[in-house]
Amino acid sequence: MMGYRLFLLFCCVMSIAHASDPLPSWNDSQSKQAIMKFVQEVTQESHPDFIPVDDRIATFDEDGTLWVEQPLYTEFFYVIDTIRRDASNHPEWQHEEPFKTVLSGDLAKMQNFSKQEIALMLAATHAGMDVETFRKSVAEWIKTHNHPRFNRPFAELIYQPMLEAMQFLHDNGFKIYIVSGGGQEFIRAFAKKVYNLSPEYIIGTAAKVRYEYTADGRPVLTKLSQLLFVNDKEGKPEGINLIIGKRPVIAFGNSIGDQQMLEWTQSTPRKTAEFLVQHDDADREYAYGPDSKIGTFSNELKEEANHRRWNVISMKNDWKVIFPWQIRASSKN
Amino acid sequence: MMGYRLFLLFCCVMSIAHASDPLPSWNDSQSKQAIMKFVQEVTQESHPDFIPVDDRIATFDEDGTLWVEQPLYTEFFYVIDTIRRDASNHPEWQHEEPFKTVLSGDLAKMQNFSKQEIALMLAATHAGMDVETFRKSVAEWIKTHNHPRFNRPFAELIYQPMLEAMQFLHDNGFKIYIVSGGGQEFIRAFAKKVYNLSPEYIIGTAAKVRYEYTADGRPVLTKLSQLLFVNDKEGKPEGINLIIGKRPVIAFGNSIGDQQMLEWTQSTPRKTAEFLVQHDDADREYAYGPDSKIGTFSNELKEEANHRRWNVISMKNDWKVIFPWQIRASSKN
Repeated sequence: MMGYRLFLLFCCVMSIAHASDPLPSWNDSQSKQAIMKFVQEVTQESHPDFIPVDDRIATFDEDGTLWVEQPLYTEFFYVIDTIRRDASNHPEWQHEEPFKTVLSGDLAKMQNFSKQEIALMLAATHAGMDVETFRKSVAEWIKTHNHPRFNRPFAELIYQPMLEAMQFLHDNGFKIYIVSGGGQEFIRAFAKKVYNLSPEYIIGTAAKVRYEYTADGRPVLTKLSQLLFVNDKEGKPEGINLIIGKRPVIAFGNSIGDQQMLEWTQSTPRKTAEFLVQHDDADREYAYGPDSKIGTFSNELKEEANHRRWNVISMKNDWKVIFPWQIRASSKN
Repeated sequence: MMGYRLFLLFCCVMSIAHASDPLPSWNDSQSKQAIMKFVQEVTQESHPDFIPVDDRIATFDEDGTLWVEQPLYTEFFYVIDTIRRDASNHPEWQHEEPFKTVLSGDLAKMQNFSKQEIALMLAATHAGMDVETFRKSVAEWIKTHNHPRFNRPFAELIYQPMLEAMQFLHDNGFKIYIVSGGGQEFIRAFAKKVYNLSPEYIIGTAAKVRYEYTADGRPVLTKLSQLLFVNDKEGKPEGINLIIGKRPVIAFGNSIGDQQMLEWTQSTPRKTAEFLVQHDDADREYAYGPDSKIGTFSNELKEEANHRRWNVISMKNDWKVIFPWQIRASSKN
């Protein structure tokens, strides 16, 4: 499941760590043991909890679960950069909200945009072009634009321990799906290079599209500004049913947006496992919880996780490293 | 010069290849040759038209392409039987259309139901229950209810030559999808048993669903009467993009509902192949074309097929047998 750039690093790590450890970036704590034990049990044909390959469905939220979501969702940075890029063609944006705030660069104000303001920005940056043109635009951007704190391309801000978990599950016959509140076509634009996942394994919020023909008769699908469905909260089980049609047996999330996906997973009449990533590492990444508008980990979610015996992954205590490039750095020493 | 051992091996391979014709129910006409040639070329790494496994996407319409659609779509028979079954709980149906006509059994009149009348019947038979309950109901029905002409369960009214084509493509690394105007959950109810396809390979017309909890706290997805999207005509490329996110390289259809799917396939920047099944065999199945309301093969579609060099499969001339049970019968002799 490694992106092509990371493949060599991964091999390097594997040779440094115990060759047999599929999760070398995880400390040997409860979270790692829970993943290992689950996979060991459900893939063993003689075990009472054995799951046939056909039903081994694993779902991963993206923002805050597979990569950084602070100080804004990555897709939001794409929106900002695209508005900046196109501003000279839209002099009216200098005076119209939400564009005026975006052009001013006021991050704190942007974190508090209303749903309506976000919809306006999405319409301006995601609609009116065909799906393939949009994907190319995103694919180019994500390689070349850097995160403001880490000063690395957004495509590199993925969590090494989660890449290892995806790879480990994949190697054990699981189908790996991303189930994100973010845009389905946005994620598809880079999923193959970043996560080694083909477009059919990406479930996200989807816009309506219109089938039409270019002047030279070529059919295209034009993205519209209306949404087809919102793949967040109760939308996640709905999106999973729409696209997979089966319930997952293992799921990873990090916020109130993932609660229903984890409930849905746990209701599968099989052995299941549920995980929530807790952002408690301000030094190496971020620390946030109930009060954050992005990636809210409410006290109710914490209670539910406790009550339902979901595994809470502590970034601080469970992960040896956060990002792939940190492995590269340490392997040079 | 070919070494003696290599020569023996070559003969051996050739005799195995000859003995195991992957399309034994097809006559050796143009249609069969077109399928064989396409697969041979795109799976050969040294060939200029080679397609990597990741991009080998094959899509099949269902009604009229994989199974019988006359005198009514199979899903329509399910609707009729369900209305009959539930009629005692709905005395008002004796006087209300379209239920009154359904209960009268007038097939000709049912073929001319309006979209609104069909929507009323779908709401009465497809909505208000959770997805899994619906699938169980369909799975039970399709095994036990017979087609009025062939007097066989609907699950057996599939075309043997198309099953062979699906298997042949699957064996050559293709992912096989059904892309149907019929209900997505309807087809998923039996797709594994009838076509050996898991739910994620079924794209169909989808109803909205609502995530809710049963009295004992179990999460379910309740089917609603509103549609999320209609997977027919221009809806087929839209549904393919929504669920697969890639264009097919080979596609099979039979009516004006498949035209856009075939155009979309042909616009893929790869070698592609397109097929339309022509129902021209009244003796063994049905013969119908431009005037049929079900499975319309219009003159415009015929012209487009000709213009775009799509392959037209003649059931009468290209298929040795139509149904699987005919093979079983002949092998007994």
